[in-house]
Amino acid sequence: MERERLYLFDTTLRDGAQTQGVDFSVEDKTNIAMALDGLGIDYVEGGWPGANPGDTAFFANPPKLERATFTAFGMTRRPGRSVSNDPGLSAILDAKTPAVCIVGKAWDFHVDVALGITQEENLELIADSIAEIVRQGREAMYDAEHFFDGYKSNPEFALACLKAAYGAGARWMVLCDTNGGTLPDEVERIVTEVIEHIPGSHLGIHTHNDTENAVANTLMAVKAGVRQVQGTLNGLGERCGNANIISLIPSLVLKEPFKSMVDTGITEEGLKNVTTVSRLLDDILNRSPNRHQAYVGSSAFAHKGGLHVSAVEKDPKTYEHVEPSLVGNKRHLLVSDQAGRSNILAQLRDFGLDIDPKDPKVDRLLEEVKQREFDGFSYDGALASFELMARRRLGQVPKYFDVESFRVQVERRHNAKGELLSVSDAVVKLMIDGERYMSVGEGNGPVNALDSALRKDLGKYSDFIDDLRLVDFKVRILTSGTEAVTRVLIESTDKTNKRWFTVGVSPNIVDASFAALIDSITYKLYRSGAPASGK
Amino acid sequence: MERERLYLFDTTLRDGAQTQGVDFSVEDKTNIAMALDGLGIDYVEGGWPGANPGDTAFFANPPKLERATFTAFGMTRRPGRSVSNDPGLSAILDAKTPAVCIVGKAWDFHVDVALGITQEENLELIADSIAEIVRQGREAMYDAEHFFDGYKSNPEFALACLKAAYGAGARWMVLCDTNGGTLPDEVERIVTEVIEHIPGSHLGIHTHNDTENAVANTLMAVKAGVRQVQGTLNGLGERCGNANIISLIPSLVLKEPFKSMVDTGITEEGLKNVTTVSRLLDDILNRSPNRHQAYVGSSAFAHKGGLHVSAVEKDPKTYEHVEPSLVGNKRHLLVSDQAGRSNILAQLRDFGLDIDPKDPKVDRLLEEVKQREFDGFSYDGALASFELMARRRLGQVPKYFDVESFRVQVERRHNAKGELLSVSDAVVKLMIDGERYMSVGEGNGPVNALDSALRKDLGKYSDFIDDLRLVDFKVRILTSGTEAVTRVLIESTDKTNKRWFTVGVSPNIVDASFAALIDSITYKLYRSGAPASGK
Repeated sequence: MERERLYLFDTTLRDGAQTQGVDFSVEDKTNIAMALDGLGIDYVEGGWPGANPGDTAFFANPPKLERATFTAFGMTRRPGRSVSNDPGLSAILDAKTPAVCIVGKAWDFHVDVALGITQEENLELIADSIAEIVRQGREAMYDAEHFFDGYKSNPEFALACLKAAYGAGARWMVLCDTNGGTLPDEVERIVTEVIEHIPGSHLGIHTHNDTENAVANTLMAVKAGVRQVQGTLNGLGERCGNANIISLIPSLVLKEPFKSMVDTGITEEGLKNVTTVSRLLDDILNRSPNRHQAYVGSSAFAHKGGLHVSAVEKDPKTYEHVEPSLVGNKRHLLVSDQAGRSNILAQLRDFGLDIDPKDPKVDRLLEEVKQREFDGFSYDGALASFELMARRRLGQVPKYFDVESFRVQVERRHNAKGELLSVSDAVVKLMIDGERYMSVGEGNGPVNALDSALRKDLGKYSDFIDDLRLVDFKVRILTSGTEAVTRVLIESTDKTNKRWFTVGVSPNIVDASFAALIDSITYKLYRSGAPASGK
Repeated sequence: MERERLYLFDTTLRDGAQTQGVDFSVEDKTNIAMALDGLGIDYVEGGWPGANPGDTAFFANPPKLERATFTAFGMTRRPGRSVSNDPGLSAILDAKTPAVCIVGKAWDFHVDVALGITQEENLELIADSIAEIVRQGREAMYDAEHFFDGYKSNPEFALACLKAAYGAGARWMVLCDTNGGTLPDEVERIVTEVIEHIPGSHLGIHTHNDTENAVANTLMAVKAGVRQVQGTLNGLGERCGNANIISLIPSLVLKEPFKSMVDTGITEEGLKNVTTVSRLLDDILNRSPNRHQAYVGSSAFAHKGGLHVSAVEKDPKTYEHVEPSLVGNKRHLLVSDQAGRSNILAQLRDFGLDIDPKDPKVDRLLEEVKQREFDGFSYDGALASFELMARRRLGQVPKYFDVESFRVQVERRHNAKGELLSVSDAVVKLMIDGERYMSVGEGNGPVNALDSALRKDLGKYSDFIDDLRLVDFKVRILTSGTEAVTRVLIESTDKTNKRWFTVGVSPNIVDASFAALIDSITYKLYRSGAPASGK
């Protein structure tokens, strides 16, 4: 069977930008557009020219895409206006993009309730607007808003909307599940019926995740014959988000029936970059990536139970549906309460530690991990602390410094002006090379004050930790048995952008934080090859 | 058409507990099991007795479920052991649960590579183990591991595994997509073929989200005829998670074709609780709920943009696929104050406060709530703090005491014996009736020390707070914009067993804790009718 071409359309910069709390700068938009182009996406929708100053500025200075078609979004002409006399439509056309996608109603209920015009008028809005885009030599697309709800309410009218666009020369009619309530089998059935009227090679699908089925709905539509797929990076979008193009790409490229059915513009290199591009979006939004995201999450190929780990080591296919490197991701064999020897050994190998599996040190390490996890440690999320513990047990971590004591104080009182204020300060006393270092630091809380005191003077180690930076700090109170203990997880980074996670556990939150801080600094010193302390 | 019964099976406590970073305490497990029972879930799988001390302790003291069937999970007998002489299987049966689910291979490749036994032996492992469960009078289930990969590799053998279990008396054969790589249309096709051999009323489906299709795969299997559905709260589970039972429930209950096809045990009241139960899990895991989660996310029914909002105000059906209150969620109109006002008024009425909606105090309260939520407060989880704020604004809360200052210190040093130890102490100065009260307290952390100092001497109020007790303490770091603030949530109780929740927010964790402590004490004094301070 000859494979047909399937076109990928990204709307992160338009529909994705509707998300609560998301506000892309022009520079963000350019970076995202270039990354999408690099993946091999066919259409990059940039926004709605004229709708807001940011979008207008972006279209005034469009990204230099190598292969993707830059697309502007907008609305059909308004009722009572001609296409040449509608400022909204003019603004969209003035952006001079090679492709233009315009949204128009396809649900009789909406035409009636939201627009308050006749069905005939609605068809004219669509046909006139598409005809004008075509007349100006652009590729025209019709975004059929609420198509599925419209089709269920009045199939003749919904189809008439598509036909109005098709007849006026639209390259694509995009079937939108605007409210996101349609389920996969229904999408398949309706698309199959629509294809009796409009060829699948001219149909697109645009879904939302309100029932957690956006990806499946898209796949079912492709199976039924549509040949354009719309989505956003990481499923960004209002309410529950749009179809996640990062999940769609690997399934369409690697899996049946799609692999034998369609060709996309995604190259092998582009496929390897989906993990990077997914994380880029989170970086731009300043949020932590979803560890559990399909294909690209850091836990997507993580194996915990001991039985799973030993099987994966025999053959990854036993517990992996695809090879992680195909999508630029990595396998992780986790250390945990349920861990057996094989997890620990695999983890040690990951650290570059070549250890004889029969070495009794492995058993002692396993014992120690179990005891510590029982005490409330969790090494799953804190591999740097785990690596330090293992290397210490193997005698590989030099002694850098001894903490003699610390003291931290938080005081809340009225100042001379009668205002209430809080002050935190900390004193830390360390021994390095037989010498005593005493530092005081301030912060907006006890942990910041301790961090600042600790790093103020680490003697000969100060240069090594110059670029260390705390990124995140998480606290969890665990009630194990009768006593509550506090687990603190710290995320750190440095100028190489590597991130590492350390953990501390204690009934005392300040103690636990201090332990995690010390591990973070020690890990950084070890990685930098800092020399041991003389005494 | 007569509707068939569809059974819901929750595996949050077993497969969900496999998630990286998740470790439920026995108390957590009990709370989750009771919440699932309240929803109307049919089976609650509690874990794997004998696999680790936590699961063993949970099964030794099982939750008192009203209607759900408590289920133990485990593995078939091992090769070379008889059912009566397999310690693993004995541990599972010794848990004495009414139902037992055992996992066994169904993929020839796994039998060969991971187990290294013959196919015939594998069938015996399954049949023997199921027969023993049945002999002991329990409901038996066979978890057909890797069923879909197995069926694609060797359909006869995969079916033979199911038949071995069915023939031995298993109530359910559960088709597991263990690696999560199967796509929806393939699930539908394979289930349809399996039903030619085993009745759908004896088949279950268990999917994973590795391609973001776990929910869709489950729905397709139900459409094809399976009558047991397995999932976890919020899709918890290793790698990319399991099928999200919180997304499945509303689609199965509210939407076609399922609504007319099957009956579940979910009551109208249970459906209204899915949002609460979803948030409960996140509370237990101390993580922020996913705002964009289907049906239950706080943004799931949020409307931005004036056009959407005005259409929704004309008729919610224009941009909502279901009525949010059906699943216990709320509509948010992001540009409109209307929703805010009505929420606040409804909440005040809940407190027993009868206030004129036109009272300008309502507007001032709304302003204050918005400002405080912007600052990082979250009153959803801290109604006692919200009630205090509202009553203060209405002039109903007397002045009990003034905090003049506090100071808390944590010190870690070596004692006379050379042991490292940490000491926390706090000093609090208060004014009551014009008199100054100064107390010092110790604790195993700064917050305990503050709590102890605060309560040591509250003068005439001491008797009122005699029975106040802190139950839980949660810390979350919020990064709103560039600055990190800490939110502390405190749960308190007293001898009446009523529980109340208070919140404090500050860049300083000790400050935030202190504010939440003060609210807890004030709330208790208010509820007890304590008199005002004279000055």
